[in-house]
Amino acid sequence: MAVNLKAPVRLAPIAGIELSVAQAGIKKAGRDDIAVLKLAEGSAVAAVFTRNAFAAAPVQIARENLAQSPIRALLINSGNANAGTGEPGLEDAKTCCSWLAQAMGLAPGNVLPFSTGVIGARLPLAKMQAAISGVVAGFREDAWHAAASAIMTTDTVAKGASRTIELAGGQTVTITGVSKGSGMIRPDMATMLAFVGTDAQIAQADLQSLLAPAVDASFNSITVDGDTSTNDACVLCASGQGPALQPGTDDWQAFVDALQDIFISLAQAIVRDGEGATKFITVDVDGARSVAEARQVAFTVAHSPLVKTACFASDPNWGRILAAVGRAGVADMEINKVGLKLDHVAILAHGEPMADYSEADAAAVMAQAEFSINIDLGRGSARARIWTSDLSYDYVKINAEYRS
Amino acid sequence: MAVNLKAPVRLAPIAGIELSVAQAGIKKAGRDDIAVLKLAEGSAVAAVFTRNAFAAAPVQIARENLAQSPIRALLINSGNANAGTGEPGLEDAKTCCSWLAQAMGLAPGNVLPFSTGVIGARLPLAKMQAAISGVVAGFREDAWHAAASAIMTTDTVAKGASRTIELAGGQTVTITGVSKGSGMIRPDMATMLAFVGTDAQIAQADLQSLLAPAVDASFNSITVDGDTSTNDACVLCASGQGPALQPGTDDWQAFVDALQDIFISLAQAIVRDGEGATKFITVDVDGARSVAEARQVAFTVAHSPLVKTACFASDPNWGRILAAVGRAGVADMEINKVGLKLDHVAILAHGEPMADYSEADAAAVMAQAEFSINIDLGRGSARARIWTSDLSYDYVKINAEYRS
Repeated sequence: MAVNLKAPVRLAPIAGIELSVAQAGIKKAGRDDIAVLKLAEGSAVAAVFTRNAFAAAPVQIARENLAQSPIRALLINSGNANAGTGEPGLEDAKTCCSWLAQAMGLAPGNVLPFSTGVIGARLPLAKMQAAISGVVAGFREDAWHAAASAIMTTDTVAKGASRTIELAGGQTVTITGVSKGSGMIRPDMATMLAFVGTDAQIAQADLQSLLAPAVDASFNSITVDGDTSTNDACVLCASGQGPALQPGTDDWQAFVDALQDIFISLAQAIVRDGEGATKFITVDVDGARSVAEARQVAFTVAHSPLVKTACFASDPNWGRILAAVGRAGVADMEINKVGLKLDHVAILAHGEPMADYSEADAAAVMAQAEFSINIDLGRGSARARIWTSDLSYDYVKINAEYRS
Repeated sequence: MAVNLKAPVRLAPIAGIELSVAQAGIKKAGRDDIAVLKLAEGSAVAAVFTRNAFAAAPVQIARENLAQSPIRALLINSGNANAGTGEPGLEDAKTCCSWLAQAMGLAPGNVLPFSTGVIGARLPLAKMQAAISGVVAGFREDAWHAAASAIMTTDTVAKGASRTIELAGGQTVTITGVSKGSGMIRPDMATMLAFVGTDAQIAQADLQSLLAPAVDASFNSITVDGDTSTNDACVLCASGQGPALQPGTDDWQAFVDALQDIFISLAQAIVRDGEGATKFITVDVDGARSVAEARQVAFTVAHSPLVKTACFASDPNWGRILAAVGRAGVADMEINKVGLKLDHVAILAHGEPMADYSEADAAAVMAQAEFSINIDLGRGSARARIWTSDLSYDYVKINAEYRS
């Protein structure tokens, strides 16, 4: 069902980052559900985590370890989120880190744990231990695709992207990333995990500082259903095996641009594979007084079940969009300044329907797999762009039957 | 599909309020889509309206007329919301008021207009005129049920309630109300209309002052899909044909209690008839620092598509509830203080699963047509109670096919 999304053809290896996957049988037997990223000594690692007040056990441990120790391995499991598991869940996450550290000759604090899947169940420790002890035998630099598959939950397509950029001096830097997520998706880190690596040599502080804006324009600009998970994380690893990059240079900017491309591609892949998605919808809000206001309107529209079902039905019931804009909580909004388009089809200008508006034209726009909703608030010059999916029968089916 | 909801058996007439319905054929032929309430001279009328920034044309006219003139008639149409219609829509609403005023020997300002239905289409004026000129021939005191039916849109059951209370002196006061709405429902006046009448004699200011708290505890405590309409209104009319009531007396309190009962009954009826609803769910949040905080958590849980689909599936996937509580934006929430129950089945205490928790017990609770989600934040003594419905295939079906 994913909208214009295919699994990546080739994910370029990153010097200094090896990956391995294993089958622990956490939720289902016969599929990879453990992935490990092994980082070369001296790697810099930056991360952002869920803002859900009830961060899962692995998120708590990962935050602690990242602040205290050099990171040499990422341990990811799918099928179980180790969230809502209290003190025992924290111990379970630590225990898994210890097992991996022991098998790799590291300290437990060198490992960041990540989990995704059902909330509220304890990790099956015996299964985890067996898989972790075996996974370390299989590290390879060209296993990004396998890792992308191993971290999937309700995803239907493995998600990854690569870019290689040529620096001014002729050297190259490569970035490869994978992501997962398709439901419980909204900004501030949705139920998604993203792991992005580069061979560039970047100082830890610089790496962390470029992560936040890149995440804001990508993973924090998507929504499937407005639910924020307890487990989200986006991790950026720079192995330092390639050229050194310094902020302020042209090479740095080229790197930042490529990284942003990858992040947007990975984020859009999550929406394209949104649970039950049949449409990929761009919501553009312009003419706002601030970016925050533009985002507020865009997300209110994107979260509206009535707008989402109208998108599913290719029904240009634009009053639903207008109603969502009107309840977005923007003070002093004036309807007689508002414009609305679906792609190129103008519907409203200055709050009134266009004389030449054709519902058939608008329906044709919405019948496409991808289209944009363009809202002009007519009260300023700030804008925001986010991406979302529609609400279909299959969204209900997937989420009503997820555990059965 | 409505959950434990039947059309009212008997709606008591209110002395001084007559009703009449007509078929204008606004959206479909052969059904009543116009209702008029005729109020005795001297009636007091109080109202609250949608807070959507893009209030529909009739809402704007109703607000104006209510502030300026004694109100003698309510004109309601279903099938067309007269919203998003710009200046012409305002003129249309005024024109309809004029026609009714003329037919009833009133001034246009004595009429309050209300519309519900599709947004963005002009009212079919010729059809309206014909129906309005005919409707005035049919006024009767016992037509509350007919009015309840005429104002329905996607509602499947007519909604109404009556109470008669005996005052200390042996006299009686009667309250009868009708409501409509089943989608685009959330607080701050959802896509709903409610018209409640009483024969009591109550000063205008007293009537308005008792309306806000009654609405907060009823219509502003329900949600189906988190969408707020452009047209919502709740109107309370006191014809003054019965006993006089003064604030501060026991009779007043009895009246307030009965009115609150009716409001809650009418509000719950909207949720029970929520689009595609198969479950009627009470969300109770306790242990909050403020009522606002408790409501914020309750609505975040009630709006979560993942919680709603789990309710539809009778799946006690309580991690979704926990994740919603965690993203509700409450500062400094501590998971190790949180408790969670489904009816009597305790799931979490102090943030950890109960040792004796049985998923089968929780699933049995959720398999009922009605159950409650009880959340204890463990950080204060404020509480809130709201009502919501689940998210089913039929919600998508109804909203994807609404206009076809």
